[in-house]
Amino acid sequence: MIILGIDPGLATLGYGVLEKNARGEVRALDYGVVCTPKDERLPTRLAILEEGICRLLDKCNPDEVAVEELFFSKNVTTGIAVAHARGVALLTCVKRCGRLFEYTPMQIKQALTGYGKAEKKQIQLVTANLLHLKGVPRPDDAADALAVALCHSYTSRLSGLYTI
Amino acid sequence: MIILGIDPGLATLGYGVLEKNARGEVRALDYGVVCTPKDERLPTRLAILEEGICRLLDKCNPDEVAVEELFFSKNVTTGIAVAHARGVALLTCVKRCGRLFEYTPMQIKQALTGYGKAEKKQIQLVTANLLHLKGVPRPDDAADALAVALCHSYTSRLSGLYTI
Repeated sequence: MIILGIDPGLATLGYGVLEKNARGEVRALDYGVVCTPKDERLPTRLAILEEGICRLLDKCNPDEVAVEELFFSKNVTTGIAVAHARGVALLTCVKRCGRLFEYTPMQIKQALTGYGKAEKKQIQLVTANLLHLKGVPRPDDAADALAVALCHSYTSRLSGLYTI
Repeated sequence: MIILGIDPGLATLGYGVLEKNARGEVRALDYGVVCTPKDERLPTRLAILEEGICRLLDKCNPDEVAVEELFFSKNVTTGIAVAHARGVALLTCVKRCGRLFEYTPMQIKQALTGYGKAEKKQIQLVTANLLHLKGVPRPDDAADALAVALCHSYTSRLSGLYTI
């Protein structure tokens, strides 16, 4: 089974692709980021983002997709931009893969470390260890996307099943 | 020239279609709303929204599209939902019509009444008057969408021209 994890963002959207075998073992197949130029207008950036996600879906053809939920903390303006991008990511993924799941940052931390308030750095180290990677994946957005994919591979959430 | 105005929303997205003739006179061709069921999950609602907007674009085939910008005031949770929907609306429109423009609520109020802090009710009455409608268009989202289309028809903003 192929799981695609997505950490939504407007400037940088992280992705991580895992393969889970019949014994429940997971390995990383791919990870990286889709970027949009900061000097372009919002609608153009959203179209670039959609194009990048479509290419990614073509390439990895996931059975299930896990998308990180938006955690609203500091900057409302940044949050709004991310929400625009997240809307595009959810739409693009659900059109291609009905098995779409969402996880909060706290659920991801809980699934990977057993502690919902773990530090970001700790999550990245656990992700690298669990996937037998030589170092922490770069950039952070790609590491975060692998973490949400890992969280999904450890969690069974039937409530997240969508049909459109 | 056909102008499509959009007031973005997740539960209810308002639209208004205007025709502007060579003398600059405008008349309303159509207005209404695209709704998504509150009991559906977010990705499904975004897909329903996209489908509705596509049907609308097929029907009115606009030369230019004007979309209201998000005004963040009271409810952050509602704002996040609207931003997801707005991302989908911008994406869907810019893919079909490169001439896409954005206006803040204050710009719309300024264009229609000459006063950037006019009351919502006043904007709706002015919209109805300018378009020679018998009453204020219902629901509010449709009236707001006609207002942003009217604002665009009165305003020349070359900076809003997108190409993707």
